[in-house]
Amino acid sequence: MERPLAVVGIGNALVDVIATATEEFLAAHDLVKGSMALVDADRASVLYDAMGPAVEASGGSAANTMAGLASLGGRGAFLGRVRDDQLGTVFAHDIRAVGVEYPCTPVPSGPPTGRCLIVVTPDAQRTMSTYLGSSSELAPGDIDEQVVARAAVTYLEGYLFDRDAAKEAFEKAAAVAHAAGGRVALTLSDSFCVQRFAAEFRDLVEGVVDILFANEDELGMLYETDPEGGLAEAEARCEIVALTRGAAGCTIAAGGGRHDVAAHHVPRVVDTTGAGDLFAAGFLHGLTTGLDLETSARIGSLAAAEVISHMGARPETDLAALAVPLLSP
Amino acid sequence: MERPLAVVGIGNALVDVIATATEEFLAAHDLVKGSMALVDADRASVLYDAMGPAVEASGGSAANTMAGLASLGGRGAFLGRVRDDQLGTVFAHDIRAVGVEYPCTPVPSGPPTGRCLIVVTPDAQRTMSTYLGSSSELAPGDIDEQVVARAAVTYLEGYLFDRDAAKEAFEKAAAVAHAAGGRVALTLSDSFCVQRFAAEFRDLVEGVVDILFANEDELGMLYETDPEGGLAEAEARCEIVALTRGAAGCTIAAGGGRHDVAAHHVPRVVDTTGAGDLFAAGFLHGLTTGLDLETSARIGSLAAAEVISHMGARPETDLAALAVPLLSP
Repeated sequence: MERPLAVVGIGNALVDVIATATEEFLAAHDLVKGSMALVDADRASVLYDAMGPAVEASGGSAANTMAGLASLGGRGAFLGRVRDDQLGTVFAHDIRAVGVEYPCTPVPSGPPTGRCLIVVTPDAQRTMSTYLGSSSELAPGDIDEQVVARAAVTYLEGYLFDRDAAKEAFEKAAAVAHAAGGRVALTLSDSFCVQRFAAEFRDLVEGVVDILFANEDELGMLYETDPEGGLAEAEARCEIVALTRGAAGCTIAAGGGRHDVAAHHVPRVVDTTGAGDLFAAGFLHGLTTGLDLETSARIGSLAAAEVISHMGARPETDLAALAVPLLSP
Repeated sequence: MERPLAVVGIGNALVDVIATATEEFLAAHDLVKGSMALVDADRASVLYDAMGPAVEASGGSAANTMAGLASLGGRGAFLGRVRDDQLGTVFAHDIRAVGVEYPCTPVPSGPPTGRCLIVVTPDAQRTMSTYLGSSSELAPGDIDEQVVARAAVTYLEGYLFDRDAAKEAFEKAAAVAHAAGGRVALTLSDSFCVQRFAAEFRDLVEGVVDILFANEDELGMLYETDPEGGLAEAEARCEIVALTRGAAGCTIAAGGGRHDVAAHHVPRVVDTTGAGDLFAAGFLHGLTTGLDLETSARIGSLAAAEVISHMGARPETDLAALAVPLLSP
């Protein structure tokens, strides 16, 4: 039997196209700061033409989380769909190069590999326009049951709910995970995403999700209340709720208890892309290596701090080395 | 008639694939630190598979120079060949997005867009393995005579000498430039490149080149002597010789005089990729806006300092704003 996995992440396989932009650029192109909007190929082309010079780097929310987990020394896999084109090659190379198992074969037909056009404003906020491309065809057939069954945690991104077949893939993965004795983790991804699927996400949290990741906007939106009210609703239904509060740190609610953890200090916030993804990486790494909730949250905060200190959504530093001081008594 | 151009750059149109690496990685893959080696598709694939996670950013030596010139406020164009694939789209987007005219149409057949695999070691040195791809087919037909005729300076990269058809394109461009009353600038590019074509480069310097850019290794190699001897040989044959000496600054030799300019201070050198390209950008910007040689060299040093302070070979800061203090009396 193959080695067990700490986490398998399932999500959109995207290459980020990252540029800086002004507030005026957001206004001129009807972009809502801080959000993720799905765009079609034509809109993606118009936005790209208007963007300044960019760099390309592998991204995708759950994929970023898996890259972070690997950087911390955790064993993970990622399931997500790319085309057999240049950007698909880039995605597959990068996820494997950080040590994440990526058992998917780039597909020979259909739309090109998906990309996420990210503009970063001077306040370090990121605004994303995602052309899903090949990822839009993620379906139950892409869920490798043997890989999911090997994982202690199956981590799913809420973004998958934007497509029906992906939602079915999501549900299949959750069922396989539970049947194999694993836990199911969900990140709500984006408050606009929650707005689109609030009732369905509530059903998931009620019946399927063991570990929920959300920020304040998302959790409030989920239960149509304020963040505190949302947290109370969610903790009654999930084993663990990890609520991230940006610079104010995070709250872990589990087993009737609460743990508040301060944000890790960042000298200069450059680009907040990937903050939530990397928090989840650190928290899940702690959890799957048997650390307590508070230490796990501290590792999450550390990983998030590293990723927001530079452009791009994946760590540039060896997170395992950074985390050593947190693991000493 | 269309507006005049300060500079037209002609060179390989490449997308850089940038990763960090150890000294052991260089040894394991027979890479000579600091060099540029041409590789075929198979070798590029093997190296890429072995490289760590990477970011992609438009590159190409002369293209980087044109991006730097545009960032300084200069009007430039670039001629170079890409395929109509994803990386070709990236290259064309980025060069236009910084304000450089790029009149070339991505070609619908032939090898894919070229790429340069760059590994940066902890000492900030870059080692490059270039798969030329579509650029390997650059030929005289790619030289737009009207664009070249509009430019005060036609800037050519020595790397073009690695392919016969590109060399012919180079020679055509130089002839068109001189016929239109412009000057021809050449960068020797790389000491290994000079080693391969020393006799031909000497003929060029003798008969064609008005402005020569070289570092100490390249200039020594050109005349099979030491750098000082090389400088003496070259200045007897060219209107202007710009010799870059890394941290020791540069020497401009012209009209029988010498001007030594110190390197611009860099708090931390991160990645030396593009240092020579950006020096040429600043120097040519000064020259084509009527500044004296010493001030032009200072702008070159400033532009080089910016690009070595971060990963990647194109400026991340508005160079025109950075250069303002140099332009005040």
